[in-house]
Amino acid sequence: MEQAKLTALVQEMTLAEKVDQLLQLAADFYSQAAEEKTGPMTEMGLTDENIQNAGTILGLSGASEAKRIQKEYMEKNRLGIPTLLMADIIHGFRTIFPIPLGIGSSWDLAAAEEMAQVSAKEAAVSGLHVTFSPMVDLVRDPRWGRVMESTGEDPYLNARFAESFVKGYQGNDLKNDFTRVAACVKHFAAYGAALAGRDYNTVNMSERQLRESYLPGYKAALDAGAKLVMTSFNTVDGIPATGNKWLFREVLRKEYDFDGVVISDWGAVKELIPHGVAADEKQAAQLAIEAGVDIEMMTTCYTQYLAELIEEGSVDEALLDEAVLRILELKNDLGLFENPYRGASVEAEKVILSPAHRQSAREIAQKSIVLLKNEENILPLNAAETIAIIGPAAGSQDVLGAWSWQGKMSEAVSLLAGAKEYSEHLLVAKEEFDYFNPSDEAINEAILLAAKADKVVLALGETEWMSGEAASRSDITLPPAQIALFEDIKKVNANIIVTLYNGRPLDLNGIGEAKAIVEAWFAGTEAGNALADILWGAYNPTARLSMSFPENVGQVPIFYNCDNTGRPYESAPNEKYVSKYLDVSNYAKYPFGFGLSYSQFSYQDVVIDQTELTPENEILVTVTITNESERAGKETVQLYIQDLVGEVVRPIKELKAFQQVDLKGRESRKVSFTITEDMLRYVHSNQQTTSDSGAFLAMVGPNSRDVTAVKFNLVK
Amino acid sequence: MEQAKLTALVQEMTLAEKVDQLLQLAADFYSQAAEEKTGPMTEMGLTDENIQNAGTILGLSGASEAKRIQKEYMEKNRLGIPTLLMADIIHGFRTIFPIPLGIGSSWDLAAAEEMAQVSAKEAAVSGLHVTFSPMVDLVRDPRWGRVMESTGEDPYLNARFAESFVKGYQGNDLKNDFTRVAACVKHFAAYGAALAGRDYNTVNMSERQLRESYLPGYKAALDAGAKLVMTSFNTVDGIPATGNKWLFREVLRKEYDFDGVVISDWGAVKELIPHGVAADEKQAAQLAIEAGVDIEMMTTCYTQYLAELIEEGSVDEALLDEAVLRILELKNDLGLFENPYRGASVEAEKVILSPAHRQSAREIAQKSIVLLKNEENILPLNAAETIAIIGPAAGSQDVLGAWSWQGKMSEAVSLLAGAKEYSEHLLVAKEEFDYFNPSDEAINEAILLAAKADKVVLALGETEWMSGEAASRSDITLPPAQIALFEDIKKVNANIIVTLYNGRPLDLNGIGEAKAIVEAWFAGTEAGNALADILWGAYNPTARLSMSFPENVGQVPIFYNCDNTGRPYESAPNEKYVSKYLDVSNYAKYPFGFGLSYSQFSYQDVVIDQTELTPENEILVTVTITNESERAGKETVQLYIQDLVGEVVRPIKELKAFQQVDLKGRESRKVSFTITEDMLRYVHSNQQTTSDSGAFLAMVGPNSRDVTAVKFNLVK
Repeated sequence: MEQAKLTALVQEMTLAEKVDQLLQLAADFYSQAAEEKTGPMTEMGLTDENIQNAGTILGLSGASEAKRIQKEYMEKNRLGIPTLLMADIIHGFRTIFPIPLGIGSSWDLAAAEEMAQVSAKEAAVSGLHVTFSPMVDLVRDPRWGRVMESTGEDPYLNARFAESFVKGYQGNDLKNDFTRVAACVKHFAAYGAALAGRDYNTVNMSERQLRESYLPGYKAALDAGAKLVMTSFNTVDGIPATGNKWLFREVLRKEYDFDGVVISDWGAVKELIPHGVAADEKQAAQLAIEAGVDIEMMTTCYTQYLAELIEEGSVDEALLDEAVLRILELKNDLGLFENPYRGASVEAEKVILSPAHRQSAREIAQKSIVLLKNEENILPLNAAETIAIIGPAAGSQDVLGAWSWQGKMSEAVSLLAGAKEYSEHLLVAKEEFDYFNPSDEAINEAILLAAKADKVVLALGETEWMSGEAASRSDITLPPAQIALFEDIKKVNANIIVTLYNGRPLDLNGIGEAKAIVEAWFAGTEAGNALADILWGAYNPTARLSMSFPENVGQVPIFYNCDNTGRPYESAPNEKYVSKYLDVSNYAKYPFGFGLSYSQFSYQDVVIDQTELTPENEILVTVTITNESERAGKETVQLYIQDLVGEVVRPIKELKAFQQVDLKGRESRKVSFTITEDMLRYVHSNQQTTSDSGAFLAMVGPNSRDVTAVKFNLVK
Repeated sequence: MEQAKLTALVQEMTLAEKVDQLLQLAADFYSQAAEEKTGPMTEMGLTDENIQNAGTILGLSGASEAKRIQKEYMEKNRLGIPTLLMADIIHGFRTIFPIPLGIGSSWDLAAAEEMAQVSAKEAAVSGLHVTFSPMVDLVRDPRWGRVMESTGEDPYLNARFAESFVKGYQGNDLKNDFTRVAACVKHFAAYGAALAGRDYNTVNMSERQLRESYLPGYKAALDAGAKLVMTSFNTVDGIPATGNKWLFREVLRKEYDFDGVVISDWGAVKELIPHGVAADEKQAAQLAIEAGVDIEMMTTCYTQYLAELIEEGSVDEALLDEAVLRILELKNDLGLFENPYRGASVEAEKVILSPAHRQSAREIAQKSIVLLKNEENILPLNAAETIAIIGPAAGSQDVLGAWSWQGKMSEAVSLLAGAKEYSEHLLVAKEEFDYFNPSDEAINEAILLAAKADKVVLALGETEWMSGEAASRSDITLPPAQIALFEDIKKVNANIIVTLYNGRPLDLNGIGEAKAIVEAWFAGTEAGNALADILWGAYNPTARLSMSFPENVGQVPIFYNCDNTGRPYESAPNEKYVSKYLDVSNYAKYPFGFGLSYSQFSYQDVVIDQTELTPENEILVTVTITNESERAGKETVQLYIQDLVGEVVRPIKELKAFQQVDLKGRESRKVSFTITEDMLRYVHSNQQTTSDSGAFLAMVGPNSRDVTAVKFNLVK
């Protein structure tokens, strides 16, 4: 439909129809029998007209149901406007991929794009049009359960992943490519900075900090073309995002020139009341529409009060009209006026969870599994060894992680199932080993099996419900029963390989003496296969942490790209009056960027082609990487930069580029990074993003800790 | 000296003399033999002239030495300008009072003033002119070791204490009252918000948050007349305070109209280099003088480069002149031109640690000791009971706490010494029980004594070096050996009273089963007497926490006056999707304002005289307090207010007033609080402090948790 027609359509709509266009309702209202809807309708104060005209629908799935609903909806809708079907497709639809924090660990942007593409396809053929993804919230506190949904603590890496996800979801021709869905970047803004890691808690930071660290991820998703933006639950400097005019009108609409749809998070418009910035639903509606929230998810402040606010002159009808127009434009961008059923296909069942999709999930899971420790090269295992596979996660199919709405545990591959493909010498428990309260029988059996084995694969971790939304933990250790099991096993067999499924960085002190630690996250439908691929060496680990693992919860928030202090510990490690703790180091246990390989890589000869950078020229930093082992492998070479003197204090290092390089056994290769002036820009105290002349360090290494630095100057 | 003469004096000074006036050096430069000074002088690039003309001296003590130095200084100084002697007198000079966090627990402003007055007197007669106190940094993170130096987490309470400290130090006639010293409020600003509780770490928050929560304490000290302000080590939105022009020129000088002296913290000017905002000492000097730092403590960036900066035109000489003038004005305000020796008295030895001062310290310590738990009224003890007094702190004189520069442990009273005044039935260990690694003999002896006693007083805690500056802990539990001791004792005697000396709120889970817990902080020279006074009931506890005790470190930062969320736990305690942790409550173990008495107080009939408040009228909230016990006691009645709807999200409650009320046994009394419009003002998003019409709750109770609310409206 042409733009002029969309505008005309808005003119044709009654005030009530326009207000309803802003309402998002759950699919239940369209699939349940009439009598089942009565309760919720009364509770929410909804009429049949509201339901017939609600602009968008949440959480529906299934191609035939989608078609039926669309057909009925358009028939009942006076102007024949199609509805729009949205859902949370976060790391896969039915084929579940690793959680985003795992995908973040891949440092593989193509993998992220592929995940999004496969997810989009499964969702699209199931009749969906929009996914509430990517979530690009910067995260620095592992207590927060929703770190699993982020790609980590780095603005640059998050931004690159944000672009890749959007590309994967939306493709290049959203209107005509029915295997894609529109992406909704969330949660604008800074939801990841919840105080004390408690979900939905207060967020406070300076505008400069917000712009410097938190906003780049969202901006990157928008620049990649994300069609929607979701508001965050939290406050941004005291004003809840969903009613934050500055954030949405000034920053998002004006500065970022975003003309897509803004949708509230679940119930967030009405939450302006408990937040204490609106006295009632009417005021909540006013604050939200003034802030520029187009779609109200799951509450009815707009539905009940927006017309009244307009009629009494408190809200300009133009605000409503522009919101309606944006929603109609989104429907048009998806081609729904011409193709209201879009991708919904009776062939959906052939597409979803196809062998190709499972294979994709397996390969991406391989890329997301981080080898944290591997003493004595205890890994990879070989087929001849007797391996006890024990612990709560050994046979568990609880490997999908939160936000796996359509995923089915029954379709997921356990580690045990994966391991059986590699070894005929597995010692496997008969007793189920509970994650929290294992029976004595289970414990004793585990010990007996461990005693008989050459090596023990001890499969530990969190259950799905321990991370995700509303799943904050004040204690980020493994459950005590699992640490006790580790202690028990250690007494009978020192060759322990711990594998971990979990949704956040953990305090791993309890299993610190394991010879190997394999961080598998929640790796998705193919988790067990991918983890076995790693354990038996069919896949040589490539993943790198995108979020620091603290020594303990008393260190958090801890992140590699922290600011300089005036008394850096490193300046005088033996002095008392430097910035440190009495009882733990300042450093992460496993830092950002860290991960081992079965190959051994060394870094030599970090050289810079010239030490003077200008806005017009560029400089080249080159390092020689050598695979010191016989085994071919992939190394993720990382470039960090430090601005030694800034107008404001600058981080001690910031990731600016990385390359994944394949090296055959014993191969050496030069890897070069181009440094340009734009990489040195940062947000000054006047909120402007510019660079300063002066000295910088370029640092190259395999992770954020083990870098070699060379100095250069920017001359402007 | 008249102001005109001071101005003329500045004109007379050479550029070099003026620059030297800004230099602060340690007393060593004036007391050591010439050859001992050579090293430091060379290292700091100092000449004899610099030393002769350095405007102020740090850390000297002793009346005769002070006189000698002043005499020699004035003789050598061309214009006969006196020097100024400063030192850290934080909670007592030689007579040590409870740490400020303990004094904060007294909720007794007169006690704070008395502490300051006694400290000032001892310091003044020892020749000192300025103390680097009060420290009024708002603190919310018990990992930070310097919480011991603050009065706690509440802006209102901190502000009241700030005023009282300043009054106590300075009196009403600083120029002529030689028993007083000038106060230096610190650390401007927001040093208490160090990220992850690590000392000197980055601080970041919005300007609104800074103004709302952190600045009121400093402002109150200034309004009370504090003569100096010290810069903080941390950044304020990316710019170290010591080079932060906005903070000092705009806020402090212009908005607050402060015309006193700004002094850097120790070495903080030069720390602009490691912070990364200055390339070298010259730039550090420029940033600091432009920010308005008058005195450079312990580094010589000004000394080396300020003249050069002025001569080359980079810095306006007027900036130097105004700094010099302010320093001379301070000297004049102290009467030093007329009385260069001021209070320095050979009679000092009679004043310091006098019986009256010891008695003052004892009484204030009584008021600072918080009874956290008292099951079965196990306390107070009676003289007939057999009491085992065991544990590392039983006989320890490590009771002064950090920042007790002139305090001597040997002069401090141990708990054991105090207890002996009350009981002839004490079972006392012979073995010394180490805080961290007790011997088996000591452990066994403690168990044996406990088994024989009616009740056990288990004296636990931190050592002095575990809190204070550069003493952050990631783990805020008691040392494991002490928890193990508790476990051992519990097996032989259930009647355990734990006493605690410590400098921060602790995670007390390890001793949670004690029948009584007595938080004595570091209570100062008279600690043991005061604690015994409490234990045997000679003093009926009155203290209330001014900082929350968390359940565990995974909850921090946790504070009572937190903001509302959009999904308050209380709104739906059985729902998943509310703001909470999976594994711990949202609440402090012992909340702000909490403390028990040996009396039992009840609150009835919270009534409000009218429900409509206007800027012109005021309203009265009245509560009836009844002492339900026979024992006379003092109750601290607290008034909190919540603004139910704000332009920005408002705290769930804020302390607005309190009263300490003496109640005889069985006495009832009405206590009234006046509420006025100015109590409802807060910092809006435009940084303006105003109130909003609308609904409020007034809450009255014995602590921040157990309150009764009444509603009222502000109508403007």
